[in-house]
Amino acid sequence: MGRQKVFMDKMMQMFHIRNLLMRQALAECLGTLILVMFGCGAVAQLVLSEGSHGMFLTVNFAFGFAATLGILVCGQVSGGHLNPAVTFALCILGREPWRKFPVYFIFQTVGAFLGSGIIFGMYFDALWEYRKGSLIVLGENATAGIFATYPSKHLSLFNGFFDQVIGTAALIVCILAIVDPYNNPIPRGLEAFTVGFVVLVIGLSMGFNSGYAVNPARDLGPRIFTSLAGWGGEVFTANDYWFFVPIFAPFIGAMVGVLVYQLMVGYHLEGEAQDREEAVTREEKERLKSCKVSG
Amino acid sequence: MGRQKVFMDKMMQMFHIRNLLMRQALAECLGTLILVMFGCGAVAQLVLSEGSHGMFLTVNFAFGFAATLGILVCGQVSGGHLNPAVTFALCILGREPWRKFPVYFIFQTVGAFLGSGIIFGMYFDALWEYRKGSLIVLGENATAGIFATYPSKHLSLFNGFFDQVIGTAALIVCILAIVDPYNNPIPRGLEAFTVGFVVLVIGLSMGFNSGYAVNPARDLGPRIFTSLAGWGGEVFTANDYWFFVPIFAPFIGAMVGVLVYQLMVGYHLEGEAQDREEAVTREEKERLKSCKVSG
Amino acid sequence: MGRQKVFMDKMMQMFHIRNLLMRQALAECLGTLILVMFGCGAVAQLVLSEGSHGMFLTVNFAFGFAATLGILVCGQVSGGHLNPAVTFALCILGREPWRKFPVYFIFQTVGAFLGSGIIFGMYFDALWEYRKGSLIVLGENATAGIFATYPSKHLSLFNGFFDQVIGTAALIVCILAIVDPYNNPIPRGLEAFTVGFVVLVIGLSMGFNSGYAVNPARDLGPRIFTSLAGWGGEVFTANDYWFFVPIFAPFIGAMVGVLVYQLMVGYHLEGEAQDREEAVTREEKERLKSCKVSG
Amino acid sequence: MGRQKVFMDKMMQMFHIRNLLMRQALAECLGTLILVMFGCGAVAQLVLSEGSHGMFLTVNFAFGFAATLGILVCGQVSGGHLNPAVTFALCILGREPWRKFPVYFIFQTVGAFLGSGIIFGMYFDALWEYRKGSLIVLGENATAGIFATYPSKHLSLFNGFFDQVIGTAALIVCILAIVDPYNNPIPRGLEAFTVGFVVLVIGLSMGFNSGYAVNPARDLGPRIFTSLAGWGGEVFTANDYWFFVPIFAPFIGAMVGVLVYQLMVGYHLEGEAQDREEAVTREEKERLKSCKVSG
Repeated sequence: MGRQKVFMDKMMQMFHIRNLLMRQALAECLGTLILVMFGCGAVAQLVLSEGSHGMFLTVNFAFGFAATLGILVCGQVSGGHLNPAVTFALCILGREPWRKFPVYFIFQTVGAFLGSGIIFGMYFDALWEYRKGSLIVLGENATAGIFATYPSKHLSLFNGFFDQVIGTAALIVCILAIVDPYNNPIPRGLEAFTVGFVVLVIGLSMGFNSGYAVNPARDLGPRIFTSLAGWGGEVFTANDYWFFVPIFAPFIGAMVGVLVYQLMVGYHLEGEAQDREEAVTREEKERLKSCKVSG
Repeated sequence: MGRQKVFMDKMMQMFHIRNLLMRQALAECLGTLILVMFGCGAVAQLVLSEGSHGMFLTVNFAFGFAATLGILVCGQVSGGHLNPAVTFALCILGREPWRKFPVYFIFQTVGAFLGSGIIFGMYFDALWEYRKGSLIVLGENATAGIFATYPSKHLSLFNGFFDQVIGTAALIVCILAIVDPYNNPIPRGLEAFTVGFVVLVIGLSMGFNSGYAVNPARDLGPRIFTSLAGWGGEVFTANDYWFFVPIFAPFIGAMVGVLVYQLMVGYHLEGEAQDREEAVTREEKERLKSCKVSG
Repeated sequence: MGRQKVFMDKMMQMFHIRNLLMRQALAECLGTLILVMFGCGAVAQLVLSEGSHGMFLTVNFAFGFAATLGILVCGQVSGGHLNPAVTFALCILGREPWRKFPVYFIFQTVGAFLGSGIIFGMYFDALWEYRKGSLIVLGENATAGIFATYPSKHLSLFNGFFDQVIGTAALIVCILAIVDPYNNPIPRGLEAFTVGFVVLVIGLSMGFNSGYAVNPARDLGPRIFTSLAGWGGEVFTANDYWFFVPIFAPFIGAMVGVLVYQLMVGYHLEGEAQDREEAVTREEKERLKSCKVSG
Repeated sequence: MGRQKVFMDKMMQMFHIRNLLMRQALAECLGTLILVMFGCGAVAQLVLSEGSHGMFLTVNFAFGFAATLGILVCGQVSGGHLNPAVTFALCILGREPWRKFPVYFIFQTVGAFLGSGIIFGMYFDALWEYRKGSLIVLGENATAGIFATYPSKHLSLFNGFFDQVIGTAALIVCILAIVDPYNNPIPRGLEAFTVGFVVLVIGLSMGFNSGYAVNPARDLGPRIFTSLAGWGGEVFTANDYWFFVPIFAPFIGAMVGVLVYQLMVGYHLEGEAQDREEAVTREEKERLKSCKVSG
């Protein structure tokens, strides 16, 4: 085992990246890969088995627990955002520097691209078997919806935008409560599980309109993959350029979520903490003063 | 980032509310909003997708985990009751002051009203598509049941009242066990998750009669919303003024729950703790006496 | 609030039972009541809604999480067995005194009786509506299976006995691992949740033969209730006196479970701990000896 | 109770095995037995009840939580691998000695063999009833798939191999993150639950092709059992000797998983820890030097 240890150490020294942002970007990439691989895998299983090996609930579970696992894998390194809208919200609040935002966005999208690629490979035979391998974007036999999200028939562009804004705002309110250093409602180490439950509940309750992307990277990465893998440019033009909605609406939603949480809970907890601090400082000053007087 | 921090601090000082009860009321409002938004959202998804994107189990999961998330968001500020019957039970036991009860009741109802409003907006197109947008309170094509609860055909008013009493009593027994300072069966920070399981189990087992409101605010808020949003006054008059049941029965249930838990578990744990304390005090007194004697 | 506090304290002193075994028996009674109320409630919901409000999975979830909640409510007082077979296993291992066994058995059965009675009352109208209120024990329209367990058509008495032995043995092996003071695999306070998962998994995997009673009290209490509530003596005579199986087989299963766990894991962990202890004692003795020698 | 205690102690001394590797092997055997008993039991329940008592989701839950319970039972003794591919990955990383690998592999396979045997006995009557007891390996009425895995019709051998490699790699990446001493993302004692979620998610998302064995022992043990119990040698020859795939592909997958995790997260965390350590050592040296200089 001595030789093995030497080899492993050498490997470690060779591949150890010392740039922190690059390490974080890689970790986000792997985390988002896991999220999209498991999540889109569950959609593929549902669609391609025509319901025998899945249902909408299994997709909800898969996305929820995939978020948990993605965060667990990368969280200690990069914070485990897996979602540019989450990075955006934390930047707004000043908890992450703005220069992280574009880097995370790109690597999250790359991770989502790779994750959907793995699922494409894994279910290659099944995709080929399903409807004789015709890769269709819209309608009854569509398979593009395995990877990116498309609106239901009933949904207008306006209502779809609102849907993504609300979904992301709900996500952000819950995540902010979970990671707020002044709120701190759960034991350390359970954040990933709780975020998984948030994603699960959003899927159970807000998934009917357009499949709850609430995450620009999770939608854009797989969409680019499908455009290259054979579904063609229609994945972008379909439904009046729907693809803009899950890219831009989540950022509006992140702003709404930050506002709602801060106004209704966050500022008061922070303000209270500050008041308490000030009270302590004031008391100390007065003691000092009285010391001087008495001295 | 310096300027951003200054701006955030100014926001915080501007919106920081110093009145504790008002802060708690706001937090309860947000918590109940989250409960009802996710819960009713799941019902909407089930009804409007006609079963393709949900089933009764998904509604149970949604209400359960929505309760967890609602408590997580507001629990550190307001205790996370989300339910006037819970506030009522804690007031009976003297763990919350009675003056909180009306304030919490109102703000919980407002939160539920807003939560159902968000779902109405989110699924506006889908509601319009479903049965050509006719907003019907009762019967096969009813959509009022997405927001408030209505009894099943087989249910008499009397049995319905009993149903809500038992459901709420079961909820209160479990919650009291979870938060009883003398019982204390779970690690700190997991209360919200455990209450979520309670709500889930109640839904799995007591949901067939009338949809397990067991919460006056969760039922009244959305009912008021539907009466204003187009379903009209029938939401109150339907089923022999059913709406009275989920408002009043839960308070009777809360009393039953408090009684059962205290008589079968609570008083004995509290009494034991007191006995132990008295024993310690007595011992100390005797030691003091013997000290005097020997002294 | 002063007067309320005085009143609550007086209540506490009046109802506080000082006999420990009686307190534990009461707590077991409430815990088993919760287990059976939620569990049988889920079966009732499944059967009476004819599948619209439940499926076998919801029954599994309900029994699993009901076990969790029952243990949480009474665990700090009585240990939260909820099952005479569990009490039996712990008595065999010398972790509980044998005189507890009959007391627990009786009160667990009473709790199960009361729990099924509550569900009978709650779903009284629904039972009446279902098949015009005829309370049938066997066949297509049977409702006795809501409360007690009956074997599937394919099951022989011999295979049914084996089924209950294996199911209970699996339960006991897992529970022993969870509560073994030398094994101790989970954080304190999560035992109830883990036992809930055990019950859930047993239901998912061993529920097809005869509905996984694996608990004499859970089966006998509701069976007595149904015999009194209108289903008549057939609940005992049906399927060649099947009711003997879920009463006796679990105790055999408990013995098998104790044996398997102890032989394959338990004795080795305990022996290891003892070896370590002996090593420490020996060392100390030698040090003492050498001290004397040197002294 | 005195005599009982003496008897239990004597039992313990008689059966206490002092060889550590043998104890670990026995524990792995019991853990894998539990995994396969509950997992294959759920498949049996699904197949034999023809869907009335199960669905693909219940199989996913059963395998996930069965993994949790198996790890809980044996984890403190043997580490709770339950899977030769996991043992293999930990050996590659030098965290387990290579001599453990063959011993664990054999005992895990024996445990899986015994687990499937128990399920065969438990559902003996049901197997006999189903299709008049003809034990068929392939096609509509096949029952061999209850125990071992067989590919779906659409799956080529090449895609099936890729499927098992990816599935195992995903499992290993998540497990390595969970047990990495430098990453350490969850509270101690929750590893078993998290691994259960990993197995659940893999089933939800990667189960359609060939039933996600991702574990050579879980597949080989039951396959040997079925070949002896009446299904005959066809269990090995079916689908162009498919049985090779779930034995060999997982080891390739384990290597891929180790590589991906180490390159994208593991090496950087380890390297960082080492850098920090070196910095501390250097500082201390310099302090010592300056001490000498000043001294």
